[in-house]
Amino acid sequence: MATNTLLLLPGDGIGPEIMAEVKEIIALLNGRGLTDFATDEGLVGGSAYDAHGAAISEADMAKALSADAVLFGAVGGPKWDGVPYDVRPEAGLLRLRKDLGLFANLRPAICYPALADASSLKREVVEGLDILIVRELTGGVYFGEPKEIVTLENGQKRAVDTQLYTTSEIERIARVAFDLARARGRKVASAEKRNVMKSGVLWNQVVTKIGKEEYADVALEHVLADNCAMQLVRWPKQYDVIVCDNLFGDILSDVAAMLTGSLGMLPSASLGAPDAATGKRKALYEPVHGSAPDIAGKGIANPIAMIASFAMALRYSFGLIDLSDKLDAAIAAVLGKGLRTRDIGKDGDTLVSTKEMGAAIREEF
Amino acid sequence: MATNTLLLLPGDGIGPEIMAEVKEIIALLNGRGLTDFATDEGLVGGSAYDAHGAAISEADMAKALSADAVLFGAVGGPKWDGVPYDVRPEAGLLRLRKDLGLFANLRPAICYPALADASSLKREVVEGLDILIVRELTGGVYFGEPKEIVTLENGQKRAVDTQLYTTSEIERIARVAFDLARARGRKVASAEKRNVMKSGVLWNQVVTKIGKEEYADVALEHVLADNCAMQLVRWPKQYDVIVCDNLFGDILSDVAAMLTGSLGMLPSASLGAPDAATGKRKALYEPVHGSAPDIAGKGIANPIAMIASFAMALRYSFGLIDLSDKLDAAIAAVLGKGLRTRDIGKDGDTLVSTKEMGAAIREEF
Ligand SMILES: CC(C)[C@H](C(=O)O)[C@@H](O)C(=O)O
Ligand SMILES: CC(C)[C@H](C(=O)O)[C@@H](O)C(=O)O
Repeated sequence: MATNTLLLLPGDGIGPEIMAEVKEIIALLNGRGLTDFATDEGLVGGSAYDAHGAAISEADMAKALSADAVLFGAVGGPKWDGVPYDVRPEAGLLRLRKDLGLFANLRPAICYPALADASSLKREVVEGLDILIVRELTGGVYFGEPKEIVTLENGQKRAVDTQLYTTSEIERIARVAFDLARARGRKVASAEKRNVMKSGVLWNQVVTKIGKEEYADVALEHVLADNCAMQLVRWPKQYDVIVCDNLFGDILSDVAAMLTGSLGMLPSASLGAPDAATGKRKALYEPVHGSAPDIAGKGIANPIAMIASFAMALRYSFGLIDLSDKLDAAIAAVLGKGLRTRDIGKDGDTLVSTKEMGAAIREEF
Repeated sequence: MATNTLLLLPGDGIGPEIMAEVKEIIALLNGRGLTDFATDEGLVGGSAYDAHGAAISEADMAKALSADAVLFGAVGGPKWDGVPYDVRPEAGLLRLRKDLGLFANLRPAICYPALADASSLKREVVEGLDILIVRELTGGVYFGEPKEIVTLENGQKRAVDTQLYTTSEIERIARVAFDLARARGRKVASAEKRNVMKSGVLWNQVVTKIGKEEYADVALEHVLADNCAMQLVRWPKQYDVIVCDNLFGDILSDVAAMLTGSLGMLPSASLGAPDAATGKRKALYEPVHGSAPDIAGKGIANPIAMIASFAMALRYSFGLIDLSDKLDAAIAAVLGKGLRTRDIGKDGDTLVSTKEMGAAIREEF
C-alpha cells in the first residue's frame, strides 16, 4: 500500500484533546495493516499565533498543500479576541480553504436515533433526519474584494464586504451537490435570495441550467434562504441535499446541525477540484462544532465529530469505504450501548471522558 | 382629534383578505369615536405590476410618503416569477423601505401560550418565549452598490452584491435596540460575522461604543450570526432583544418566528427616524408571513398577524397604547376561547374562516 499523508492541525481549545483520539485510531489502523498513514502535525489558529504571530505559518501551509488530506480540529477562543483582524484564529482556516481550493463543503446533518431526545425539537420532527448541506466555501462575501473599513472625511467609518460569484464557481458546486444527491435521495434544494441579491439571481439561473442539462434525474427545487431556514425548523425531513453559497451555508448548516441534537457528533469535509493529472482532490476534514474554550483541557470534550470527520477522510480522500463504514458503525455502537460524553448525556446514561469514548470506539474494531 | 392618515397596501395573495379585516376594525374604532383614521388604498407587488407595469406606482409612492403610516399586506406569487428583476413584486416593498427611510424593523417573536404545541420545538423550549429582533432595514447587501451581473469576455457571468455599512447607520439602529431593551429585559445581543466580514467588525465596534457610552444600564452581548441561529434553535429564551444587519435579520427573524409556532400571528413594524420638526416617524406595518398564494381567495387565511400589525401601528405611530393593548388582548382572548384558522388549528379546535376570526376579535371590543 502506498503511504498516504495526513496533516493534523489540532488548533485551539478542545482541538488537541479530540485530535488525540483520532491519532489513537490511526495508530490502531496502521498497526493492523489496514492503512498506511504517515502523519505530520502543525499549528493553526490561536496556537499558531502564539508561536509564530500568524494564524498559520508558511511552513505549515506548505505541509497542508502537499498532504493527501488535512484533519483540522477547531480554532479560536477569548484569549485571542483582541488580536489584529489579519492574524485572528479564523484567518488560518480561511487561508487553508482558499489556498487549497476547497470549494465544496459537505455538512451532513444526521440525527443519531440514540440522541433524538437531545434535540430541542420534537422527536418526530428530527428522528431519522439525514440531510446534507453542500456549501460553497471559497467564494462569496468571505473572499470578495473590496473588503475594507475606510475612514471618511467626516470621521465616519464605512465598512464594505463584497459578495461575488461567477458562473463557473456556481456550476462546480452545483455539480457536487447533484452528484451527491444521486447517491442519496435524488433531491436538491438550492437556497439563495434571488429576490434581493444579484448573486442569487445568477445562482438560481446556473443551478437551474446544470440541473436541466446534466441531472434531469435529480429533482431540483429553489427556495429563498430565509424561507429555507424556516423550513429547516418546521419540517427538516422535506430536504435531502441543500446547496447554497458560503454565507447562507454557514448559517443554514449550523441550524441544521443544531436541529439534530447531535452537534458534538457532526463532521464535515471540504474538498477541492480533482487534479487534472492524478484525479486526487485536496481535502480538509473538521468537526462542525467549535473550539469550546469553556471545557478545554478538562478531558470531557466529545471526540465523535472529530472521529467521524476522519471517517469522512477515509471515504472521500482514500476510497476506504468499508473502513469508513466500520468506523461510523463503531460510533453508532457505543452510542447504542449508552456511552455519552457530558454534552450529550442525560440521566441514566453512562458518562465517559474524551479518552474513554475514544477507547470504546476503538474496542468496536 | 386630528385626522390621522393610513395608506393600506394589501398587495398580493392573501393580502387583500387579511387587510379587509383590518378595515373592519378601523371602521369600528372610527365609528365609536375611539380613532379618527382617514384611509386611502393603493397597489403594491404583483397587483401593481399587473395594473401599472411597476411594483408600485409613483402615485402610490407619493401617498405612502405623505401618510402617517402604511399598512402593508404581502407581495409575490408564482404568477410573477418571470417578471424582470426591477419590477418584481418585492421591489415595491424594498422601495417603500428605502424611500421612506424605514431603517428600523421590529420583529417580535412571541409564543402565544395557546399555540405552544403548534411549534416544532418542545413546549418547554418555546413556551412563554418573547424576544424582539431589531433588524437594520435600509442598508447592507440589500441596497449597496455595485449590485449587478456583468458578462465577462470569456462569456462567463459575474454577479456582485455589496454589503455596506457606515458608523451612523449602525449607531442609529443600535440606539433603537437599546431603547427598546430598556422597556423590556434590558438585554441586547448583537449578531454579526466579525470573524469574516469587515462590516461585522465595524458593527461590533460601534454597538460596543454606543452600549458603553449611552446604555450602561443595558447588558450587551456579542454573538456570531451563525452561532445566534444555533442558539435560537437550542434555547431561544436566553435572548431579549437581538440587533443585526439587514440580511442576518432577514434569516434570524424568520427562524425566531418559526420557533414560536405562531408564524401566522406575528406582526412587524418598520420605522424611520423622527422628523426633526414634528418628531413623527414614517412607518410601515406588515405581517411577518408572506402572501401564501396557495390559499389565496379561499377565505381561510389567518388575519391575526395583519391585525397585530395594526395594533403595532396604534402603539408606535399614534401613541394609542391602551387601544393597542386592548386589540392585543382581544386576539389573545379569541385564541383562549379555542378559535383557530386552519394554519394554527388542530383536533378539537373550532376552525374558523378569515372573516369569522376578524369578527370574533371585534366582538371582544
Ligand atoms: C470559523 C469561521 C470562520 C467559520 C465560517 O464562518 O465559515 C465557521 O463558522 C464555519 O462554519 O466553518
Ligand atoms: C420579500 C423580501 C424582499 C423580504 C426581505 O428579504 O427583506 C422578506 O423576506 C422580509 O423579510 O421582509
